[in-house]
Amino acid sequence: MSEQIREVSMPRVHNLHHVEIFTPKPEESLDFFTRVLGLEESHREGQSVYLRASNEWAEYSTILTEGPNPGLGHMAWQVAEPEHVDGWARRFNDAGVDYRREAGGASFGQGDTVSFEGPFGHRTELFYDFQRHVPANPSLLRSRPSKFPAAGIGVSRLDHLNVTAQNVDAARDWYSDVLGFKLREAARTPEGDIGVWMSVSSQVHDLAIMRDGLGERGRLHHIAYYLETPQDLLNATDIFVDEGTPIDAGPGKHGLTQAFFLYVFEPGGNRVELFSGGYPIHAPDWEPVIWDGAAIEKAIIWYGGNLPDTFFTQAT
Amino acid sequence: MSEQIREVSMPRVHNLHHVEIFTPKPEESLDFFTRVLGLEESHREGQSVYLRASNEWAEYSTILTEGPNPGLGHMAWQVAEPEHVDGWARRFNDAGVDYRREAGGASFGQGDTVSFEGPFGHRTELFYDFQRHVPANPSLLRSRPSKFPAAGIGVSRLDHLNVTAQNVDAARDWYSDVLGFKLREAARTPEGDIGVWMSVSSQVHDLAIMRDGLGERGRLHHIAYYLETPQDLLNATDIFVDEGTPIDAGPGKHGLTQAFFLYVFEPGGNRVELFSGGYPIHAPDWEPVIWDGAAIEKAIIWYGGNLPDTFFTQAT
Amino acid sequence: MSEQIREVSMPRVHNLHHVEIFTPKPEESLDFFTRVLGLEESHREGQSVYLRASNEWAEYSTILTEGPNPGLGHMAWQVAEPEHVDGWARRFNDAGVDYRREAGGASFGQGDTVSFEGPFGHRTELFYDFQRHVPANPSLLRSRPSKFPAAGIGVSRLDHLNVTAQNVDAARDWYSDVLGFKLREAARTPEGDIGVWMSVSSQVHDLAIMRDGLGERGRLHHIAYYLETPQDLLNATDIFVDEGTPIDAGPGKHGLTQAFFLYVFEPGGNRVELFSGGYPIHAPDWEPVIWDGAAIEKAIIWYGGNLPDTFFTQAT
Amino acid sequence: MSEQIREVSMPRVHNLHHVEIFTPKPEESLDFFTRVLGLEESHREGQSVYLRASNEWAEYSTILTEGPNPGLGHMAWQVAEPEHVDGWARRFNDAGVDYRREAGGASFGQGDTVSFEGPFGHRTELFYDFQRHVPANPSLLRSRPSKFPAAGIGVSRLDHLNVTAQNVDAARDWYSDVLGFKLREAARTPEGDIGVWMSVSSQVHDLAIMRDGLGERGRLHHIAYYLETPQDLLNATDIFVDEGTPIDAGPGKHGLTQAFFLYVFEPGGNRVELFSGGYPIHAPDWEPVIWDGAAIEKAIIWYGGNLPDTFFTQAT
Repeated sequence: MSEQIREVSMPRVHNLHHVEIFTPKPEESLDFFTRVLGLEESHREGQSVYLRASNEWAEYSTILTEGPNPGLGHMAWQVAEPEHVDGWARRFNDAGVDYRREAGGASFGQGDTVSFEGPFGHRTELFYDFQRHVPANPSLLRSRPSKFPAAGIGVSRLDHLNVTAQNVDAARDWYSDVLGFKLREAARTPEGDIGVWMSVSSQVHDLAIMRDGLGERGRLHHIAYYLETPQDLLNATDIFVDEGTPIDAGPGKHGLTQAFFLYVFEPGGNRVELFSGGYPIHAPDWEPVIWDGAAIEKAIIWYGGNLPDTFFTQAT
Repeated sequence: MSEQIREVSMPRVHNLHHVEIFTPKPEESLDFFTRVLGLEESHREGQSVYLRASNEWAEYSTILTEGPNPGLGHMAWQVAEPEHVDGWARRFNDAGVDYRREAGGASFGQGDTVSFEGPFGHRTELFYDFQRHVPANPSLLRSRPSKFPAAGIGVSRLDHLNVTAQNVDAARDWYSDVLGFKLREAARTPEGDIGVWMSVSSQVHDLAIMRDGLGERGRLHHIAYYLETPQDLLNATDIFVDEGTPIDAGPGKHGLTQAFFLYVFEPGGNRVELFSGGYPIHAPDWEPVIWDGAAIEKAIIWYGGNLPDTFFTQAT
Repeated sequence: MSEQIREVSMPRVHNLHHVEIFTPKPEESLDFFTRVLGLEESHREGQSVYLRASNEWAEYSTILTEGPNPGLGHMAWQVAEPEHVDGWARRFNDAGVDYRREAGGASFGQGDTVSFEGPFGHRTELFYDFQRHVPANPSLLRSRPSKFPAAGIGVSRLDHLNVTAQNVDAARDWYSDVLGFKLREAARTPEGDIGVWMSVSSQVHDLAIMRDGLGERGRLHHIAYYLETPQDLLNATDIFVDEGTPIDAGPGKHGLTQAFFLYVFEPGGNRVELFSGGYPIHAPDWEPVIWDGAAIEKAIIWYGGNLPDTFFTQAT
Repeated sequence: MSEQIREVSMPRVHNLHHVEIFTPKPEESLDFFTRVLGLEESHREGQSVYLRASNEWAEYSTILTEGPNPGLGHMAWQVAEPEHVDGWARRFNDAGVDYRREAGGASFGQGDTVSFEGPFGHRTELFYDFQRHVPANPSLLRSRPSKFPAAGIGVSRLDHLNVTAQNVDAARDWYSDVLGFKLREAARTPEGDIGVWMSVSSQVHDLAIMRDGLGERGRLHHIAYYLETPQDLLNATDIFVDEGTPIDAGPGKHGLTQAFFLYVFEPGGNRVELFSGGYPIHAPDWEPVIWDGAAIEKAIIWYGGNLPDTFFTQAT
C-alpha cells in the first residue's frame, strides 16, 4: 500500500526530452538545423522531421513541423519512473489539470504519454519510455552516440527551452507546485518576477519563463543547444556570420545562470540559443539566486553588448 | 505511516560534500592547496585546516589533516533530506553495517552525522546540514561565492574522488546495493571489473573505484577538482611545470567519463586530479557504458601519453 | 660606399617597444596595471613607473607617468639595425621632419634615440639598444622571461597602439612614405579612410590610426595587450566585471584585423584593449584588405554588441 | 650601382610557401588531407594534387604527388623581392651551390624559380611570384580567403616543416650562412646540436632540422599545419582518434618553440603535425634560446606524455 501512496504523492518530471517547433519554411529550417547546426535527421512523418544532436542517445530531441506560423509545438519531458505516467494522470485529476492520454507508439519512438496544455498555453508531454538511437557507425568513444565530427557547428545536445507568460509569478508557482520544478534563479522586481529559471535536473535551468513582452499567451522565447566550450561557441559564431544567419544577441554572458550565450533566428523565425557554461546544482537545498534592484542589469548582461529591445518582445 | 516507510526504504546519498586527506607535510600541502591550486582557508582546528574552492558554497570541501602518512581521512556526502540521516542509521542496522552517530556541531560546520567505514576500508560520513559560506566580499555574480579571480590555478570545485579496492566487483555491488550509487561506466575483463565509475548525482562519477594494484585496503587513488574548460587545465599545467609540481600523467583524455585530465602529486604524497569535460547524465534509465576487450585501451587513454605504471600501483 | 647608401636610403622601424601614457591618478593606474592586468614594476624614476608584461624580454613596455590629464606620453619603436638610428636622423633631415637626439642612458634602459612629434602630434622615439630583463627567478620555459603564473589577468605582452588623426589619409601616407609602415587593412569611404591598420612587423597592426571624433590632434585611442587565447580573454572579462572596471566595448570580434577584443578604461582614463586572435602576415606583397560600402559594418563588428558612440569620440 | 650591389649582397628568403610530399597511397592521402584535415583541392596535374588550407591566399600550400615511397618532394619559399630570384642565382654561383632555373609557369601557379638540393639532400625552390586564390564564394571576413566553416578539422594554414640531417651543426651553419635563416632555439649537447629551430619570418620556426635517427640523408620529419587555439587542436584529436588516424605523439607542449602539438601519420606514411601556440619573435636581435644539460628534457616535453622512440628514428 505504501508504494501506491508513494506513486500518487510524488510523480517526478525528470529531464527534458524534446521540443517540437513549428516553421512556415520547413525546407530552410531543416537545412539550418542539419547543415548549419549539425543535427541529423532520424525520421520523417507527416509534416514533421525528427532530428538528433551528436551527443544525444534518443532518436530525436527536436521536431520540425510545418505550420503557418513559427512557435512551440510542444515540449516533452521524461518522468523519473515508468509508473509516473499514471502518477501524473492521477495528480492532474486531483489538481484539476485537463490532460490527455496517448498510448505508446502513437508518437514516433515514444511510450505511454500524458499531455496537457496547462494554464500558460504551452502544450506539454510526459512519458517514460522512448526509443534509443542505435548508431549505424558508432563512435569509438562508447559514451558518445555519434562519431566525431558532426556537420557544421555540431551542437552537442538540446539543453533547455525558454517560454513566456503573462504572469511570471503565477507560472513560477504553478510549475513549482503542480509540476515540481525547482526555482534556481529569478529576476525580481517589486511588481513581481520578470523571469524565472527553473529545473528538474541538476542543470541551472531546464525551463525558463520570462514575462511576455506583448502580453501574449503560449509563446516560445527560444530553444537552446549546448556546446562544450565557449571557444566552440565563438567558432560557431564565425560560421553564423559568414552564413548570414540573423544574430539576435551575443556572444555574451548572462549573470543569470552564468550562460555564455548566442541567440540567432532560424529561417522559420524561431529564436535558437547556443549555450555553453552555466553551472550544475548538486545541493538538495539550493537557495534560489535572486537578482533584484540594480543587480538586474548584471543579471541580464554580465558581459557583452546590450540585448536588443526585440529580445524582450519577440517570441513565437 | 507511509512517510515512515518511505524514509526507511529509500534514504538517498545526494552529493559529495568534502574529502579529508592526511598529509605528513602539512605546511607544504597547505601552501600547495592555497597558493598553487587556489583554495581558501576557512577554518583551522586541531591538526586540520579546512579549505574551500572558489565556486563552492560550503565552508569547506577539503580538509588537510596532519598525519604520519598520506591517505584518505574520510569522504563525506550530503543526503537528500534531513531525515535521511536517521534513515541511513536504520538502513545500516538492517544491512549489518557498523556505524557511529555524531551530533551536529561535533565536526566544524556539520550537522548530525552517521559515519561508517564499510567493507573496503574508506571512512565515510553522511549528513544533511552544513554551514554555508558567507563571503566577506561577495562576487557581483550572485551564483558565485567568491570574487574573481581566485589565486593561482583557481580550481572551481571538488568534483569526485577515486578509491581502490581489492575486489572491484564486490565494491561496485556494495556501493550500488547498500548505498544506492548508480554504475555509470566500467572497465570490464573476463576476470571482473578493474574499475567502476559511479554516481549519486548527474555527474558521470562522484566516486570511482579501481582495483588496488598492491592488493591493499582502504586506499585513496586521487581527489579531483574541476576546471571550467580544457584551456584552463592547459594553463594550469604550465603553472605546475614551472612550479616543479610532480606530474603523474596528462594532460590527456580518458575514454572513461570523457575526462580531460591532469594528475599531479601534492607535497604530502596524495594524487590530485584536475579535471574538465566529462558529461552529465540526465536520463533516469542510463545504461552503463562498458569498456571491454580491445576497447579498454581507449577507455584508459582516448588521447594523450600512456599512463605510467605507478598510476596503477601507487595510492595513499 | 654602397653600405653607406643603403643605410641612408632604407632605415627601418622594426617593432613596437613601449608606450608611455599619462595618468592623473598614478596610484590607481599602477594598481590596475599591476594587480589587475598583471604587469610587473621594474623601475621607478621621477613621476614615472616602468612596467613589463610576463612575456616581454625588455625591462618595460609600459610607462605610467603622472600628468594632469590622461593621454599618450610617447610611443617608442626599435629600429632594425644599430646604425638605423643615425639613418633615421639623416632621413628626417631630408624629409624635413623636426627631430631631437638623445644619447643612450638619458632614458632608463634605452640606447641612442631619435625622437620627433610628426605632423599628427604623437611624440615618437626610435632606438635600437635597450636593456634586457634578467629574471630573478626565471621560468623553466627558457623562451619565457617570467615564471608562470603572472598576477591577475596576466596579459602576455604589449601588442599595438591606436591613435587618432584629423586626416587619416594624410596620416596613412605619412606613416607609409616617411616611416615605412605598411598598410594592412583600411575602412574606406568615398570621403577618405576613417581608419587604417598598419604594421612594420608581421602583425596585422602595430599601429592603428582612426579619425579623431572631435577633430583633435595627438590623441591616443587605446593601447592593446595580447592574451594567448580567446578563452583567456573571456576569463579576463569576468575579472574586470567583478573588479568594477569600466568596460567600453566587447568581448567581440572586429572584422578588421580579426581581433577578438575587449576595451576597458584604466583608472587614469586611458582606454586599454585586451586582444587575442588577429593573424600574421608573412607575404612580402600583401594586398591591403579594404572594407568599404556595406562591408564596413562587418569590419567594425564581425560579432558582438555594437560599439558605443564614445568609442568613436572618446580619446585621451 | 649601389642597387645592384645590394641585390647581390642580400637576397632574402622571406616565408615558406608550400611543401610537396610523396605518397605511395595517393587516394587515401588525398582523402585524409581533404576530408579529415580540411584542405581544398585547387588543381590536379600529372601525378600531383594541389591543396590549400582555409586561411591561405595562395592556390596551394601542399602538393601530394604519387611516388613509390613517402618523403619530401620539395619545399618552396617566397623571396622578399622579385629581383631576389636572380639574386639567389648569383649568390649560389658565388657560394658554389648547384642550382637550376625554371621559368615562370613551368610549375603550376608559380613564377621564375631557382631550385637546388643543398648539402643535406632536401630539394628546395625559391621564387617570388605566385598565383593568388580567387574564392568562388568569398568569406564576408575579407582577410580570410575561404568561407567558414572548412571541412573536417579545418586546419588554418601550413606553418613549418621539419627535416633531418646527419650533422645538425653543419646544417644549422649552412642554412644560416648561405640562406640567411636565423637560429631561434636549439637543443644542444656537448657533442653538438641535436635539433635547431630556425626562421626567416617572425615565426619561432619556419624550418626545424633534427638529427636523423638512422643517419640518413634528405628525409622529412614532418610538415605542420596551424590551428587557431589549443581547444581547436583538442577537438581535432577527438576526430583523429575516432577516424582511426595513427597518432604518433601528443597532444602535448614542447618547451622548444612553446608548441602545443599533435603528431599523426597520414595514410602515405608521412608525419603531419597539428600545431597551435608558439610565439612570435619581433626583436631584430633575438638571442637564440639554448636548451642544454638537464633542461633538454623540458625542451622536448614541457608537458604531455613522453615521445615514442619512433619520433627520433622514423622519417620519410
